Amino acid sequence: MKVPIIKDVLEYNKEHANINRDLFKKKDILVINLLSSPGAGKTTLIISTIELLKNKYNIGVIEGDISSTYDADKIKKYIDAVVQVNTGGTCHLNASMIAKALKEIDLENIDILFIENVGNLICPVGFDLGEDYKVVLSSVNEGDDKPIKYPNIFAKSDLVLLNKTDILENSDFDIALFENTIKELKYDSTIFKVSAKTGKGLKKWAQWLELKIKKAD
Amino acid sequence: MKVPIIKDVLEYNKEHANINRDLFKKKDILVINLLSSPGAGKTTLIISTIELLKNKYNIGVIEGDISSTYDADKIKKYIDAVVQVNTGGTCHLNASMIAKALKEIDLENIDILFIENVGNLICPVGFDLGEDYKVVLSSVNEGDDKPIKYPNIFAKSDLVLLNKTDILENSDFDIALFENTIKELKYDSTIFKVSAKTGKGLKKWAQWLELKIKKAD
Repeated sequence: MKVPIIKDVLEYNKEHANINRDLFKKKDILVINLLSSPGAGKTTLIISTIELLKNKYNIGVIEGDISSTYDADKIKKYIDAVVQVNTGGTCHLNASMIAKALKEIDLENIDILFIENVGNLICPVGFDLGEDYKVVLSSVNEGDDKPIKYPNIFAKSDLVLLNKTDILENSDFDIALFENTIKELKYDSTIFKVSAKTGKGLKKWAQWLELKIKKAD
Repeated sequence: MKVPIIKDVLEYNKEHANINRDLFKKKDILVINLLSSPGAGKTTLIISTIELLKNKYNIGVIEGDISSTYDADKIKKYIDAVVQVNTGGTCHLNASMIAKALKEIDLENIDILFIENVGNLICPVGFDLGEDYKVVLSSVNEGDDKPIKYPNIFAKSDLVLLNKTDILENSDFDIALFENTIKELKYDSTIFKVSAKTGKGLKKWAQWLELKIKKAD
């Protein structure tokens, strides 16, 4: 009896994701679903990316958290189009939460929409939000074994960002192990080494985003 | 229709948890359910604790992971009584997984059993495994805002270990914010600052464990 109900949840989510996707397409918005462990640096990455691109593009952010508006408040200092979604206890965002949040944003004026998912390496990857790309952020501090232990999120993401590489030199993080495990999961994976805090490596990430922009110049 | 089914799952889990708890009581085993984000240092903490206490107590470990035996293999170098539980995709251990794992351990010879839960700050806290204590490990790298963003796990745990404090001095981690948020969630919380890697602060943690030991000397 349990399996059909889980199916229903995912089918229901898929329907809403498709509605979101159609809307994003119609409005020419590039949508990034940003995934990571708690504390890997998603919010810092979003703020650094806003700083890099705000003169060229209009950016919006949907912040997903169990509770609080802590991260949304931080981002609000940089841009206006920020909406907080509190899941109340659910370990991931879903497409209907996003549909509701979209009503709070003036989509005509958005080029890139970042959706910061709940900090979790397991649950969020199963729920399509209608995004164009899933980007997973993994930090040096978490260790080089994350792709071994949480393979699904690395296999299903379109881009891997290894964050906090400013501490890479003085750590025992095995970069070859990290990269090879990801390539085994997905042979054509792209991995960028960045430090959202110092800005190192963010140019490549910004270029990757610019290549995907849908709105005409 | 969904609510009664979720209830059933939790009720079914509670029944198994109570069976586990009776068994732990009968065998005088202290059982710790260890919770954290991915990469916060649970495995390193377990290994350092084994090193500190192995001459006095027999220690067993149940390793919970989505997939792989990566962490269990590491611990196997230090003790024999290690069992890996692969959840296959589920974001937490449950009591019946533990019941099955217990069949693989000679419980007569165990004083302390560590259950390393799946790396996740959300799902595991809702599932009683029959343990005596929930201990949550949070690392400096994850940031001082984890208790704000994931309040439930801090409110429901019996002890908080702040790990990776060897980097505390050179970080912008606000220790007062971290501690005050936890105290607001649970006024009588105990918080130990440790570094599982360097060993700093682990004596207090070991003493806390020794106070809870059930087996007679």
